[in-house]
Amino acid sequence: MIGKSTIKQLKSLALKKYRQKEKLFLVEGNKNVLEVLRSNYEVTQLFATKAFLSENHILPTQAKQIAEVTEEEIKKASQLKNPQHSLAVCTLPTDEFLPEKTDDLSVYLDDIQDPGNLGTLIRICDWFGISQLFCSPDTADLYNPKVIQASMGSFCRVNVSYIPFETAFTIARNSGATVCGAFLKGKNIYTEELPLKVLLVIGNEGKGISESVEKSIEYKITIPGFSRKNEGAESLNAAVATGIICAEFKRQQFF
Amino acid sequence: MIGKSTIKQLKSLALKKYRQKEKLFLVEGNKNVLEVLRSNYEVTQLFATKAFLSENHILPTQAKQIAEVTEEEIKKASQLKNPQHSLAVCTLPTDEFLPEKTDDLSVYLDDIQDPGNLGTLIRICDWFGISQLFCSPDTADLYNPKVIQASMGSFCRVNVSYIPFETAFTIARNSGATVCGAFLKGKNIYTEELPLKVLLVIGNEGKGISESVEKSIEYKITIPGFSRKNEGAESLNAAVATGIICAEFKRQQFF
Repeated sequence: MIGKSTIKQLKSLALKKYRQKEKLFLVEGNKNVLEVLRSNYEVTQLFATKAFLSENHILPTQAKQIAEVTEEEIKKASQLKNPQHSLAVCTLPTDEFLPEKTDDLSVYLDDIQDPGNLGTLIRICDWFGISQLFCSPDTADLYNPKVIQASMGSFCRVNVSYIPFETAFTIARNSGATVCGAFLKGKNIYTEELPLKVLLVIGNEGKGISESVEKSIEYKITIPGFSRKNEGAESLNAAVATGIICAEFKRQQFF
Repeated sequence: MIGKSTIKQLKSLALKKYRQKEKLFLVEGNKNVLEVLRSNYEVTQLFATKAFLSENHILPTQAKQIAEVTEEEIKKASQLKNPQHSLAVCTLPTDEFLPEKTDDLSVYLDDIQDPGNLGTLIRICDWFGISQLFCSPDTADLYNPKVIQASMGSFCRVNVSYIPFETAFTIARNSGATVCGAFLKGKNIYTEELPLKVLLVIGNEGKGISESVEKSIEYKITIPGFSRKNEGAESLNAAVATGIICAEFKRQQFF
């Protein structure tokens, strides 16, 4: 059973201030829960249905406490519209790992606001083997339940660091990476030979890359559009644009 | 001023049954509202702030009724977390245009459920000059306010038709298009020479392309993943995958 006060506590974890106060975050959705149980995150409490527990052979060591609950109870505690059969409460990490060098391709998000976009971006990084995602301090919070949800477990594999652009820029330059930015006007990614080592900067959903960051961009790139009437979509969704650019980097390097 | 009963009516338009009963749909967000005013949709009512109206020189002919309201009032009527300065009520179209032939690239969505994904997919079509988007009857509804919102005005330029797969298949074949499907296992889009004329089928977020549709797919394609530990993301978000595949079709054709 999930008591009333626990439900209240779980619901409060939708807000960053309560996540920081309680030093906890919430993982919902069966796929996410299974991934977090296999990860290095500390799962303090697992609420799951009998069916979920028997299907997935959760070891007691994977979660400090396991409570068998009904679907109805999960529904009450859930932030999701369509809750599933499990819900994990995890310890909020206190220290952030900051790499000294970047890989061939890493990404810096300049104030991405939408939690769904951030989660999708983490999933894109995971798909393309990008182990490091840098975020500006004002980017949506990794531990927002909507971010975790949209990442589909990928938050367990991609290292997310919140740092000012200058710090990411220094790490990128020390690694020999070119700092590229996605703009509406830039070099066509399909006719350019893209640099082999890159820090890709992606701007805010509405405002794009901020002026102060733009000054440090060494290489402006763009995805060519094909609207027929010269009055089509002004831009692509930030996550879609990132996916297309990452795919093109990998294509040029590997195929 | 927006009266209480109007607010109730506007809120009800979040649900399909009320949209169909009232024969109306809601357009929110300044960009969407400006686009719908310029489109062929009939705007029956426009609620907007004084600033929005003076900045944008709305002609009375563009909306049957224009009401100057406060931001506070828009907030009350809005479905958005961060409402903007305008809100348009439009007549729900009664007839759907169904093209006899497809363009070089068209898309069929097989039960996309998330309204945000559908809106983003419409925006992708618009960006890549894809004028026709086919949707299975169970795909999210175009006139869901969240779909309109995520489309960022692109719903005004992309024709969306809800038809069974068989109908889309017939149209595609009559147009000489190859029916391609995005799968987790298929031909690598980067090493294949993709067909010049294509109907691209995209599956449901969780289940992928349904079995009955899969039988008719002539050409299965996949986006190569680069997870390093062989245990990375299982898939990409449906809209991101569509963006990457559409971009690759265009690249092969034009660059």
